[in-house]
Amino acid sequence: MSVLVSGTIALDSIHTSSEIHNELLGGSASYAALAAGLNTPVQLCAIVGSDFPAEHRELLTSHGIDLENVETVEGGKTFRWTGRYHDDMNHRETLSVSIDVLEQFNPRLNAAAAAVKIVLLANMSPDNQLDVLKQLSGKPFIIADSMDLWINIARDRLLDLMKEVDLFVINEDESKLFVDTSNLINAGRKLQAMGPKYVVVKKGEHGALLFGPDQLFMTCAYPLTAVADPTGAGDTFAGGMAGHLASLGKAEFTFADLSAAVVYGSVLASFTCQEFGVKRLATLTSEQAAARLAEFQACTTIG
Amino acid sequence: MSVLVSGTIALDSIHTSSEIHNELLGGSASYAALAAGLNTPVQLCAIVGSDFPAEHRELLTSHGIDLENVETVEGGKTFRWTGRYHDDMNHRETLSVSIDVLEQFNPRLNAAAAAVKIVLLANMSPDNQLDVLKQLSGKPFIIADSMDLWINIARDRLLDLMKEVDLFVINEDESKLFVDTSNLINAGRKLQAMGPKYVVVKKGEHGALLFGPDQLFMTCAYPLTAVADPTGAGDTFAGGMAGHLASLGKAEFTFADLSAAVVYGSVLASFTCQEFGVKRLATLTSEQAAARLAEFQACTTIG
Repeated sequence: MSVLVSGTIALDSIHTSSEIHNELLGGSASYAALAAGLNTPVQLCAIVGSDFPAEHRELLTSHGIDLENVETVEGGKTFRWTGRYHDDMNHRETLSVSIDVLEQFNPRLNAAAAAVKIVLLANMSPDNQLDVLKQLSGKPFIIADSMDLWINIARDRLLDLMKEVDLFVINEDESKLFVDTSNLINAGRKLQAMGPKYVVVKKGEHGALLFGPDQLFMTCAYPLTAVADPTGAGDTFAGGMAGHLASLGKAEFTFADLSAAVVYGSVLASFTCQEFGVKRLATLTSEQAAARLAEFQACTTIG
Repeated sequence: MSVLVSGTIALDSIHTSSEIHNELLGGSASYAALAAGLNTPVQLCAIVGSDFPAEHRELLTSHGIDLENVETVEGGKTFRWTGRYHDDMNHRETLSVSIDVLEQFNPRLNAAAAAVKIVLLANMSPDNQLDVLKQLSGKPFIIADSMDLWINIARDRLLDLMKEVDLFVINEDESKLFVDTSNLINAGRKLQAMGPKYVVVKKGEHGALLFGPDQLFMTCAYPLTAVADPTGAGDTFAGGMAGHLASLGKAEFTFADLSAAVVYGSVLASFTCQEFGVKRLATLTSEQAAARLAEFQACTTIG
């Protein structure tokens, strides 16, 4: 069962207290597609400029990611982001952003992409996310991620989107911002009331919460002793969830399926944090992911 | 199997953004003894002044807590603490402290208290904790808790203590302070290297980590939708662990026993947060604790 991932493709420059890496493959869709691609074929819908390096394109296609729905703007420049992490890696600041081709992004799906059974709307503008939804020809399971920027400047469109998605994924601070509460359980329930049957609140190193209609599932995160670069961990998480669900080959998912997908997504995200950009994700095998999942389960089970 | 709890008894005045409560029963030993007392007889070793209210004494004895080793200083004043929580309940400031009788605390155990199989050295000065250890007549399982104050002003004595304890319990920020690292896994391993076979790092609303010789166990915390007063949650956690272990009636504990104790302690701590001071803990029944434990396990198990 293939997954459609739509979101941003970026060239990221990342500063930490010890290293600087420039023009890495980044963007929500790159991380999410590579993560989902570990378990399932992926169709990617995004936009890049003609400056997008061939090596990045090859990296994606070598992971079985179909780029037929990635638009390349001749003479256009790919979206670029530069950010700096503080010592504890839990906070970052944006040093510069060049939107460039993203401003003219008008997602277009071919018939195969429009007919998938699982759609991941990775973080991008709610307008773009809604544009993708309009083109779907079936009734897929729809996952959407978002961020503080859209909560602040495109709240109404985000609310429109919330009515259409099955699973909404957001991080802890952004969930509190979105529904104006300091309590995570209340935040999750308020987000569900906006439309999504399921809500996942990502807590980074502290794990994640999954809210179902009458259920709650909680998980810790895989314990890392060092974090090189947390960029894309949340996108990897969402992509990992989508790929896990696709690998089940089901038409409908139970709360247990979603719970297992949350654990799997969280485990994949831990790999992303271990090297800069998509570097670790690009070399990750499904056997390595399965081994870490088993290790994680042993750490969270009594006896 | 009875538990010896030694620590502070205090009269706490607690300010939150919505309420102020004065001269509540508090102190590390009060919370820890009430928590342990839910599952096992408790011997309490502490010090109070002659101003210590009879109603607080009765509350403790009515929970089966033996006060034979609690010294009452005639004309002395009980330790008092006043603190204020900020809006998010995750940070507090101390408004005033009156040490009073604590300064002359010289723990004395009778034969019954000295012969227990499980000892919980709740948060107090490492000198007092070491004084208790010297008087033990058997080879009990020893649990010790501490705080930033002692890390900062009595580090050497705390290091002496670490060599004697089986299980060291500390919160997340204090663990990082103690061993000067920003990574929790590294912090736990460094604390173990100081002596304790087991280390628990308490993460408040994010759960806890248990480090064994070659093992790691992680748990989330029970999800609360409202926190009235988090004072004593950490002491409740440690007391709950001690009481759970005592209820097993074993001479030695496995890593699985310790893991189950961590989950139980975390669940008990959630009750403490729901009302001011020891109010909720004082009315808690073992059936209510068991019901919440089952609910928690359902939220952390897939399927």
